[in-house]
Amino acid sequence: MRLPRGFKASAIAAGIKPSGKLDLGAVFSRTPLYWSLVSTEHSFRAPCVSRNRARFTSGQSVHGIVVNSGNANAATGEQGIWDNEDFAGLSTNALSAGRVQNILTASTGVVGKRLPIEHIRDTLPELAKSMHDTSDAFAEAIMTTDTTPKQVAVTMQGGARIVGVAKGSGMIHPNMATMLVFVMTDADIAQEKLREVWGDICANTFNQITVDGDTSPNDMALVFSSHEVTVDEGEFISALSAICERLTQKIARDGEGATKLLTVQVQGARNLEEARIASRAIAKSPLVKSAVHGNDPNWGRILTAIGASDAVSEMASLMIGLQGVTVFQGSPRPYDEKALSDAMKTEEVVISVDLGIGNGAAKAWGCDLTAEYVRINADYTT
Amino acid sequence: MRLPRGFKASAIAAGIKPSGKLDLGAVFSRTPLYWSLVSTEHSFRAPCVSRNRARFTSGQSVHGIVVNSGNANAATGEQGIWDNEDFAGLSTNALSAGRVQNILTASTGVVGKRLPIEHIRDTLPELAKSMHDTSDAFAEAIMTTDTTPKQVAVTMQGGARIVGVAKGSGMIHPNMATMLVFVMTDADIAQEKLREVWGDICANTFNQITVDGDTSPNDMALVFSSHEVTVDEGEFISALSAICERLTQKIARDGEGATKLLTVQVQGARNLEEARIASRAIAKSPLVKSAVHGNDPNWGRILTAIGASDAVSEMASLMIGLQGVTVFQGSPRPYDEKALSDAMKTEEVVISVDLGIGNGAAKAWGCDLTAEYVRINADYTT
Repeated sequence: MRLPRGFKASAIAAGIKPSGKLDLGAVFSRTPLYWSLVSTEHSFRAPCVSRNRARFTSGQSVHGIVVNSGNANAATGEQGIWDNEDFAGLSTNALSAGRVQNILTASTGVVGKRLPIEHIRDTLPELAKSMHDTSDAFAEAIMTTDTTPKQVAVTMQGGARIVGVAKGSGMIHPNMATMLVFVMTDADIAQEKLREVWGDICANTFNQITVDGDTSPNDMALVFSSHEVTVDEGEFISALSAICERLTQKIARDGEGATKLLTVQVQGARNLEEARIASRAIAKSPLVKSAVHGNDPNWGRILTAIGASDAVSEMASLMIGLQGVTVFQGSPRPYDEKALSDAMKTEEVVISVDLGIGNGAAKAWGCDLTAEYVRINADYTT
Repeated sequence: MRLPRGFKASAIAAGIKPSGKLDLGAVFSRTPLYWSLVSTEHSFRAPCVSRNRARFTSGQSVHGIVVNSGNANAATGEQGIWDNEDFAGLSTNALSAGRVQNILTASTGVVGKRLPIEHIRDTLPELAKSMHDTSDAFAEAIMTTDTTPKQVAVTMQGGARIVGVAKGSGMIHPNMATMLVFVMTDADIAQEKLREVWGDICANTFNQITVDGDTSPNDMALVFSSHEVTVDEGEFISALSAICERLTQKIARDGEGATKLLTVQVQGARNLEEARIASRAIAKSPLVKSAVHGNDPNWGRILTAIGASDAVSEMASLMIGLQGVTVFQGSPRPYDEKALSDAMKTEEVVISVDLGIGNGAAKAWGCDLTAEYVRINADYTT
């Protein structure tokens, strides 16, 4: 996809993936970018996450990011920190001729193995030389177990453009990578505003995906702006939110072994946070996910997931809908089981819940649980 | 198994299960029993749970319990409350000739369908007549998707006896029941002491089982004492704990589709609660469970589950052992991958973790995640 003004991207096969596929990618801007970061709260954050967080906290400007797949450089002890510093320093030298520490890094892939820094060192010069105006190769280079590259783009009225690229299949892949999101825009949005809205947008989208119900050491979502095109702030935020929701759906839909996208809409929660909690609880329940796979309108599992969550709920005020059919409202409601099962035989299953208590509303996304998921993850891979 | 002094039990096929198998059971004592209860914190507790909790809070004495399988009488609205009151009243009449409200009830099975109270009414008199001295038929009558009845017993020096009976395969079965535990003893332990220790014992055993990582509306663990045989208090508590740990292992081992018992031992946590949290987080991770199924010594998944949990941890002080082999200690440790994978090809896999921070220690139990689990739960069952 065509990048926004000011951005270049490139990708190369550095030999980190044994398959020989693209595994090193860069996004770069000659002028300093506005940016914002949301990253994993995992206790064992990978060195790339820790370094990017430190840059973000200090308010330092950046010119882009270099990403490798095939190796997460996580759980690699102190050595991993030095390797990531080398990765960052070499990237800065290659892309911007030595302006120190203004390039971010991200790593995704196998956990607990040393980053093959010599492969990166040897190929960075060519990566820097082959910059172009589209995100396609970059989107491929960040893939691990993804079955397809994930990109979405929009051009706003007035010409500002937003391009989002993501990787992730399975919220957590301690041995095969995690969720990474990079959104590039040329919209001239104030640095402070960008920081302010990014957290909320990520909380409503990427942090509401659950495939394994877990986070990992390398998860990061970044937004970069070259701030070249004037925009209406409200319209931009809406467009950015929409881009992130579409990327979220692509990630959830590509969960390991998944055949369906599961969308859970909760309203009537006591507050926003409890709506998020309840919707995630449903989307991550193995029993709900299995029922979705089997086209089984088993609302008892949805009810049970809600009641087991930390969101306040009362049976008398609870409504559960499945593909638009109300199956529970204070007590069980009659419905045509065969017809509802047939209605679930689609690529997207929607569960809607009204807790009937307050005004909190949120969505969560997941996928069905399949025997293929178990097969993928039980294989002897080490 | 032979019941402790003072107890009788019986079971009958009341026609609640379509299969015609045993589905109504009773445990009864002519003299009032000391007792204690730990039950689910689920928001949508089944009426039987709410009623038993109320009896417990009021300090009322009881003479036993009647349990039906095949129907959970959960998510049945107000009707479910009246049906359970009928169930309790009819049971009291049948077993103890009308002494009001001194019999507890428990229901397990399908969620959201009305309890067939007429089947229970018709068969209770015969159930009351066929009381005997063993728990075997009762253990069968409380089964739902369990592949085997679960009973353990011990006779202490001095003659006091403890018999534990449980059902449960899958921590949560919103459409096919949940975990129920009944422990009977004739040990003369003070009512207050029994109440005091039961919470801790359940927290260390039954509440540390995770199959789906969830709780359900009907979960209950009860202990009854006919207080006939003098015991040493400390020895009795140890014996009771051991009985509960053995029942816990039986429940976890019988998780849906499971082929292996997964035992997770955590020490060095900041405190007991964090040790429980960390051990449960590992035992419930779908990626860890899949790896255990595939005999894959993929410690990265264990590390990731720990770091994503709410237990405080630091990579530098972290130790991870798998079947007794240290695979991580601050950084990855070398080990023979083939030999370790071979060592995992057993019926029990033990993961041991030392967080290296404090003195908190706990165990959790789970099972492997198999394609069979998905098959069982994806089937169109409604």
